[in-house]
Amino acid sequence: MVKFGVIGYGYWGPNVVRNLQTLEGAQVVAVCDKSSAARRRVHKTYPNVYVTADASELMSSPDIDAVAVVTPVWTHFELAKEALENGKHIFVEKPFTSNVAQAEKLIDLALQKNLKIMVDHTFLFTGAVKKIKQLLQEGSLGKLYYYDSTRVNLGLFQHDVNVVWDLAPHDLSIMDYLIEKSPEALVATGQTHLNGFEDVAFITLYFPEQVIAHVNVNWLSPVKVRTTLIGGEKKMLVWNDLEADEKIKVYDKGVKITNQEGLYELLVNYRSGDMWAPQLEQVEALRQELAYFVDCISHNRTPFNDGAAGLRVVRMLEAANESLSKRGALVYL
Amino acid sequence: MVKFGVIGYGYWGPNVVRNLQTLEGAQVVAVCDKSSAARRRVHKTYPNVYVTADASELMSSPDIDAVAVVTPVWTHFELAKEALENGKHIFVEKPFTSNVAQAEKLIDLALQKNLKIMVDHTFLFTGAVKKIKQLLQEGSLGKLYYYDSTRVNLGLFQHDVNVVWDLAPHDLSIMDYLIEKSPEALVATGQTHLNGFEDVAFITLYFPEQVIAHVNVNWLSPVKVRTTLIGGEKKMLVWNDLEADEKIKVYDKGVKITNQEGLYELLVNYRSGDMWAPQLEQVEALRQELAYFVDCISHNRTPFNDGAAGLRVVRMLEAANESLSKRGALVYL
Amino acid sequence: MVKFGVIGYGYWGPNVVRNLQTLEGAQVVAVCDKSSAARRRVHKTYPNVYVTADASELMSSPDIDAVAVVTPVWTHFELAKEALENGKHIFVEKPFTSNVAQAEKLIDLALQKNLKIMVDHTFLFTGAVKKIKQLLQEGSLGKLYYYDSTRVNLGLFQHDVNVVWDLAPHDLSIMDYLIEKSPEALVATGQTHLNGFEDVAFITLYFPEQVIAHVNVNWLSPVKVRTTLIGGEKKMLVWNDLEADEKIKVYDKGVKITNQEGLYELLVNYRSGDMWAPQLEQVEALRQELAYFVDCISHNRTPFNDGAAGLRVVRMLEAANESLSKRGALVYL
Amino acid sequence: MVKFGVIGYGYWGPNVVRNLQTLEGAQVVAVCDKSSAARRRVHKTYPNVYVTADASELMSSPDIDAVAVVTPVWTHFELAKEALENGKHIFVEKPFTSNVAQAEKLIDLALQKNLKIMVDHTFLFTGAVKKIKQLLQEGSLGKLYYYDSTRVNLGLFQHDVNVVWDLAPHDLSIMDYLIEKSPEALVATGQTHLNGFEDVAFITLYFPEQVIAHVNVNWLSPVKVRTTLIGGEKKMLVWNDLEADEKIKVYDKGVKITNQEGLYELLVNYRSGDMWAPQLEQVEALRQELAYFVDCISHNRTPFNDGAAGLRVVRMLEAANESLSKRGALVYL
Repeated sequence: MVKFGVIGYGYWGPNVVRNLQTLEGAQVVAVCDKSSAARRRVHKTYPNVYVTADASELMSSPDIDAVAVVTPVWTHFELAKEALENGKHIFVEKPFTSNVAQAEKLIDLALQKNLKIMVDHTFLFTGAVKKIKQLLQEGSLGKLYYYDSTRVNLGLFQHDVNVVWDLAPHDLSIMDYLIEKSPEALVATGQTHLNGFEDVAFITLYFPEQVIAHVNVNWLSPVKVRTTLIGGEKKMLVWNDLEADEKIKVYDKGVKITNQEGLYELLVNYRSGDMWAPQLEQVEALRQELAYFVDCISHNRTPFNDGAAGLRVVRMLEAANESLSKRGALVYL
Repeated sequence: MVKFGVIGYGYWGPNVVRNLQTLEGAQVVAVCDKSSAARRRVHKTYPNVYVTADASELMSSPDIDAVAVVTPVWTHFELAKEALENGKHIFVEKPFTSNVAQAEKLIDLALQKNLKIMVDHTFLFTGAVKKIKQLLQEGSLGKLYYYDSTRVNLGLFQHDVNVVWDLAPHDLSIMDYLIEKSPEALVATGQTHLNGFEDVAFITLYFPEQVIAHVNVNWLSPVKVRTTLIGGEKKMLVWNDLEADEKIKVYDKGVKITNQEGLYELLVNYRSGDMWAPQLEQVEALRQELAYFVDCISHNRTPFNDGAAGLRVVRMLEAANESLSKRGALVYL
Repeated sequence: MVKFGVIGYGYWGPNVVRNLQTLEGAQVVAVCDKSSAARRRVHKTYPNVYVTADASELMSSPDIDAVAVVTPVWTHFELAKEALENGKHIFVEKPFTSNVAQAEKLIDLALQKNLKIMVDHTFLFTGAVKKIKQLLQEGSLGKLYYYDSTRVNLGLFQHDVNVVWDLAPHDLSIMDYLIEKSPEALVATGQTHLNGFEDVAFITLYFPEQVIAHVNVNWLSPVKVRTTLIGGEKKMLVWNDLEADEKIKVYDKGVKITNQEGLYELLVNYRSGDMWAPQLEQVEALRQELAYFVDCISHNRTPFNDGAAGLRVVRMLEAANESLSKRGALVYL
Repeated sequence: MVKFGVIGYGYWGPNVVRNLQTLEGAQVVAVCDKSSAARRRVHKTYPNVYVTADASELMSSPDIDAVAVVTPVWTHFELAKEALENGKHIFVEKPFTSNVAQAEKLIDLALQKNLKIMVDHTFLFTGAVKKIKQLLQEGSLGKLYYYDSTRVNLGLFQHDVNVVWDLAPHDLSIMDYLIEKSPEALVATGQTHLNGFEDVAFITLYFPEQVIAHVNVNWLSPVKVRTTLIGGEKKMLVWNDLEADEKIKVYDKGVKITNQEGLYELLVNYRSGDMWAPQLEQVEALRQELAYFVDCISHNRTPFNDGAAGLRVVRMLEAANESLSKRGALVYL
């Protein structure tokens, strides 16, 4: 039985607690939140769980094996560090930390103490991402050409980070998982309109072997869009995460260019075939992720969404901010 | 009666000829195309129109007042120049020319000869763009925040230009018309996969007063998308050009941030109201544009989509190519 | 404080209990369900609520003011009757009863005892139905022409009723509320394929003044559809309940026929204008309905969705079954 | 070479003429229309085609092998009869005739004279209907359960027939082609609102072996809908004819009921799998149909969409009118 302390009971924390409570092999013993209203909600729903406003109570408790840090990003490092120092495994909300240096320190610390870090890249546990991963691994799409994601809607404005740090971690962690290569460089452009943080931004990432990725994030869109186009040599797919069914559509379409002599002798062959929407696993991603975390702790395994994965995403975010500050300068990674 | 010679009877030329033939005040007297199959098609449909493979026949003909150049972009300059030198008004397919220098020469020449240039920015004559222009001019959207266009589909690959020169002229000319300011700088990123020209590209344009624009063009998309998001302080709109009806949806949505003391005292007010899809004018844009050209010639007026408009678009395209070649360097305009 | 006993904790019962528990002025004191698993779920979530397998415990309890009957339709009459006889107000799941005679008896009984009946026509409390009601009452749509609803999906098969009794009560109660007239007659057609009950059915209802209504219900559809077209003399609307936003679209479209002399002198005028999607109230309908029930009890008011409303729907359902059994015979109401 | 005379050059006639003109083995030699404007349009586009206002000129011409009757339905019988009597093959717009007796007479006449009749059931030549036919013939869908079509939009009002005769011939001819059985009976309900003809109507058709079909036609809908649901034991499909691509989506979904002892022991098994959108043939249906007619004439073959097929549709339409006039009475076929 892995016993959890959860820090943060705002928007996402209740989902973490609810899932942990119904998992075999896990139990939430304490929840910490600075807001008394949040603490009352915990107590009403889970009368047996200890509630506190003081995170250090969780850190020092010998009853707690693992700490879930579900708080704003600027607080992650201090909380995660204290938890690790106290011998707790940590589950940290994305993005992992505010900068690369912090992420590296946490990874080192966990290594020294033989503790597990899992960064909450929830999307990697959805049926959609699992299916895309499978299609790529099987080679169904052929050589990858591009990954192009649009993630826009009205708000929620964050008070402490820009739209890149708020929305792009989803895309960057998915990309990191699917492409399995590190980007060489990126270019980020954007604009602030309201509160001094960029509310509209566009990131291009150059991966090896002519793979290009692009992320469009926007807090000022009248409509919600969650659409990713993925193009490969053999097939292409559209992932629309807002579809109730048929989130993924795989198109048997392609282009082949036969290089003949002379510029005007190029022969372009378009291929167009059936479309296919595979049925996807219908599980709650967060539940699967937490079960996997419990399993990694119990069997002393390193999760694939570990501190190193979190660090790779933070490195891209940091580079994006640097590029943004220079109006789109190329930043090498 | 304005008498036209049309050069190029491939994909778009037949539309130009068909519309001119049914316009009051216009008449096509000759069509030139290098392909004998194209010339036979002209003759079958318009038995009274003179057909030729030799453009210089049109240039020298005293019967022709205006020449429509509906050929690949790399041929525009020579053909347009010869037409102007022979005293013909010109209607030129977009993009206007292959580079800024050519565009400037043609503008000078037309000025000297008091001839009209119209660049075929057809979209400016659609019901959708007219309605957006009206909404912006009325101030319905409030101060503009961003313009974000996605224009992707499978092919058609061009043999002589990249996807930016093929697809982005639409967006750049619309932007130029709607925003009414010149961009200060741009950043273009992209990738080549097949024939040595970029087939996927993303352009960010920085306009004055924190207006940002973005264009996503792609020849390798499994689905066709023609969607533009436009965000303003008061309202936001989505223009989906593939919708049969309801191409434009105006959302009474917005965000207002009240700057209180202290970072965490920001008050974000989201406003969400009705959506409204105005009925749009249902005319053929090209027909309206050509009628306007005939009218400008007849009344010695300068069209708003003149050589200068064409030049502004070519300048952006040239800058985009420069930025692309430097993997996304900021290029000032 | 109105104290509730709830009978039935299967699919819908948990929603009734959850909403009652958070309402000012209401409290659930006991829940009854024959399934021990269901009772354990109640106890886990609401440790203070009394659970029992024996409905008569609720009926005889002096602590209970009102009973919610959230069980299969064939059990409604006996449970509702016993509750009324014991002086409890009743909230009954739709459809009200299995036949007209039962509904009439319950109405009589409630009248004698001065008790309230509310039939759970939840849809009448949605933002969508409220907005349509408002548009009709204001006269925005003009004289009503037709009401055409499609409500299809795969399953859930009921074991004891056909697809009409399962799905059409929604449409019939909405129609009853919006049209404010009683249908004169109906025709129902359908077919059984699997378990002896009709799984596909179509109902046409003739209302006074040339208003026609139609309901398409189907348990064997590969896709879920919840779409209603409403046509009026001045405007028409589409209500797509599966849209996240823009559930209702109002079209400024119409047809006017000017009767000239002679058959071929008819002049048809089509009118086509803007489309408008009004913002809808975003509340949980069941919560509003239960608050209204508590209010009706507290202030001794008769709800508009009372036993008489439930009876009108049951009368249509009974007639539909009669028509179905005669392969579509016209049945007068 | 089959030489055609075409009667009627209104909405559909120009498509017939255009396709015949470009077919190998066919030639239009004369076109008849009562409207002088229509005759001028013919002459402008096809200067070599003889135009006349007098149909009898076509009938008596020895140069004409086949007559296409593309006029309102009430004129079909007289024109088709005269053509047959003059030894011409006939291609007749749908619906074939105004009543069953007329259709039977034309069939007899053609038989006597050994002439071909083709009724223009164009949809049978679309890629979509061909694909559905193939899926049914292969047994991919399993035993057919239902066919449910919605065909609604605003106008065009016909002056001489109701919405059933205007829109339902499409569905009835498709059904006749796909189901390959004759319906046993039908029920039609509807309402007139404007010009004395039903503008909203619903038809249920009972086919053998528990196959049920339904058609929803409406001239007063604010939106255009062309959607057919087809349910089978193994698979189900949705045909949305307004989709540019992916008109047909095949769902690997089904329900199986295992009949156990006792009513409440029914076991319902839902099956849900992938969705698949087969690529469809992209040809102009009318062109294929006319080529097939020319081929049938040339090789003395009977088309499958012959007079008998036309008669079957007219029989259903006649029965629908009878049922409508009795407010939905069951009419045996």
